[in-house]
Amino acid sequence: MTDFNDEEITDFDEILQNNIPESLLPKIQKLLYGHNVKKLKVLDEIETLSNVFNFELKSFRFSAEKEELRMPRIVRVGLIQNHIVLPTTESILRQKNALYTRIKEIIAIAAKAEINIICLQEAWNMPFAFCTREKQPWCEFAECAETGTTTKFLQKICKELNIVVISPILERDEIKSDIIWNTIVVIDNNGIVLGKHRKNHIPRVGDFNESTYYMEGNTGHPVFQTAFGKIAVNICYGRHHPLNWLMFGLNGAEIVFNPSATVSGLSEPLWGIEARNAAIANGYFTCAINRVGTEVFANEFTSGDKKPAHNKFGHFYGSSYVAAPDGSRTPGLSRIRDGLLIVELDLNLCRQVKDFWGFQMTQRLEMYAKSLSDVVNPDYKPQIIG
Amino acid sequence: MTDFNDEEITDFDEILQNNIPESLLPKIQKLLYGHNVKKLKVLDEIETLSNVFNFELKSFRFSAEKEELRMPRIVRVGLIQNHIVLPTTESILRQKNALYTRIKEIIAIAAKAEINIICLQEAWNMPFAFCTREKQPWCEFAECAETGTTTKFLQKICKELNIVVISPILERDEIKSDIIWNTIVVIDNNGIVLGKHRKNHIPRVGDFNESTYYMEGNTGHPVFQTAFGKIAVNICYGRHHPLNWLMFGLNGAEIVFNPSATVSGLSEPLWGIEARNAAIANGYFTCAINRVGTEVFANEFTSGDKKPAHNKFGHFYGSSYVAAPDGSRTPGLSRIRDGLLIVELDLNLCRQVKDFWGFQMTQRLEMYAKSLSDVVNPDYKPQIIG
Repeated sequence: MTDFNDEEITDFDEILQNNIPESLLPKIQKLLYGHNVKKLKVLDEIETLSNVFNFELKSFRFSAEKEELRMPRIVRVGLIQNHIVLPTTESILRQKNALYTRIKEIIAIAAKAEINIICLQEAWNMPFAFCTREKQPWCEFAECAETGTTTKFLQKICKELNIVVISPILERDEIKSDIIWNTIVVIDNNGIVLGKHRKNHIPRVGDFNESTYYMEGNTGHPVFQTAFGKIAVNICYGRHHPLNWLMFGLNGAEIVFNPSATVSGLSEPLWGIEARNAAIANGYFTCAINRVGTEVFANEFTSGDKKPAHNKFGHFYGSSYVAAPDGSRTPGLSRIRDGLLIVELDLNLCRQVKDFWGFQMTQRLEMYAKSLSDVVNPDYKPQIIG
Repeated sequence: MTDFNDEEITDFDEILQNNIPESLLPKIQKLLYGHNVKKLKVLDEIETLSNVFNFELKSFRFSAEKEELRMPRIVRVGLIQNHIVLPTTESILRQKNALYTRIKEIIAIAAKAEINIICLQEAWNMPFAFCTREKQPWCEFAECAETGTTTKFLQKICKELNIVVISPILERDEIKSDIIWNTIVVIDNNGIVLGKHRKNHIPRVGDFNESTYYMEGNTGHPVFQTAFGKIAVNICYGRHHPLNWLMFGLNGAEIVFNPSATVSGLSEPLWGIEARNAAIANGYFTCAINRVGTEVFANEFTSGDKKPAHNKFGHFYGSSYVAAPDGSRTPGLSRIRDGLLIVELDLNLCRQVKDFWGFQMTQRLEMYAKSLSDVVNPDYKPQIIG
């Protein structure tokens, strides 16, 4: 199913490891990833299972200083990136069920590594079909956030395994006019739906014709208080918007997940930058997740790039990673394989970094609240000298 | 004078070039730097002179698509990073004059490469002495932005060579109570002072005790209309603040310079991220400049890091670079040598990238103007669910 070009790189870090001399490698890695990321050892059984079930497993940890008044607040997050399982021409139910089966097996293995919070990729229970601009059958994939099949499927798992799952889906608002949204559902570790959030910023670029299907979200910037810390979700294209990241921070988020679907040739030079910058600027952890593989559709479509009509989306390049508030980040998952990235965080690092750097104290929010209010005035005169 | 640890890396890119096989190198570089940065050939004479005058020369260019209605708007920028020349114990005048001489020789060579705009490093005409918390002699380095010796020195050069220079200095406001500011002066290519801007965000971290010397700037977010495009300057620590970058963009900047002084062990994992993210998010070019070397002071000082008193600032790691709105960036200058980074830009790329990605169109400024106004209310209740 994948359309990966053999000449492309599959794993950036592997190339470094295979070519940079041992004496230099840690220094190069430190420049690339910062000083505060270490490998995390997981049970051999988990390694074995990842091979059996054919997905890549990487695991790291970020540490924090010991404090007198607060105990460490250790959380393990799991980021899952995956191909769709069946061709996009299969029935909706078969496609969904195949993805349920695949995700269930990965989550079960993740749970053995004592993961607390799992985030799935954007619109994880379907192909990313918005390239087609066809309304059907893709709108049929949409489900009620609170009572849909996908939510029910995950509720059972969350309760059974005592984990929080962030489930990005296409939402059908059955109560309000059947409108469709791009939504994440947060399911708590007791199996109850804690809440949902709708994507704030919608792309109109290349094959990402999402504005044909849903509008800008109307749920603000909620932070979800879970048993494992305060989390928020910046969905996909929202990662290009520093203000979106900012508001999740101002509402108290300690981890912000960024479930995405994005392709090489489009966003790859931006991928390692944006979520990491957000972690630095806002004093929280960020978890960037991208799907993998090339999805093929029955009917041809064009991409607004002057090229002939075609049936394939570009290559979703995976490369999921986690960034810490101190600017460190993990290496990424593979560019082509399904994968599980396990990362152990000490949430105490967030406040420690804020105290150290002082970005929040020095950010002059009052000035910018006023500046932005001025700018949105249609008569705003930019401050230009000369 | 330098205190560089021999075991540290001097040039990241050189290591890649020397170790990654030729078949993989361009792919690795593309992942690291994006697709739109090419080497720029300069005259052999300039290469030779850079060797004679002992500074590193690197030169690149970013291209843009041809348009029907606008001609390409090609601009060459020059970023200069340098050591202080004399020990910090020398007289103020001797220290300044030695820096004038050094900068003059580098600028003269830059002009041979037909550079239009040059930006010097933060507080370029003095050591970065704010680690000491001593008021004298360091406050004596401060000068009037409009009529000080440093400005006069550069005005002559700008007029003679037909270049714009951004000159970051310690400013003495002789008219308003002799207050000190961290300021950049923009000197136009006719030798006239176009205007100035004062650093908006002041650090209180490690050896960066700048809040002892000057307060947060009161000059807003000016954009300077020069013959070579609309430019702005985000001074040093302001690069950690996405809102600072944002406002320069909303005022129309096409290139934003970030003259800095920052040391390894502190900011290095952040360095390649922040200015590049700003270029992406705001649709302009960014030019990040950092000084090089380790500066030694007469009297010992402490760094708030529990370590014993000492006489040396950490190692300023250079690594100056330019990032483009499409997410591409140049490799950096050396971590230890004086250097000149010449980069040719086509300013048309800014609007082209805005049209392509749509970040400005989709950024929902009205929503955030309201959100920030709410947040700064002392009674603001964060949006927390659960």
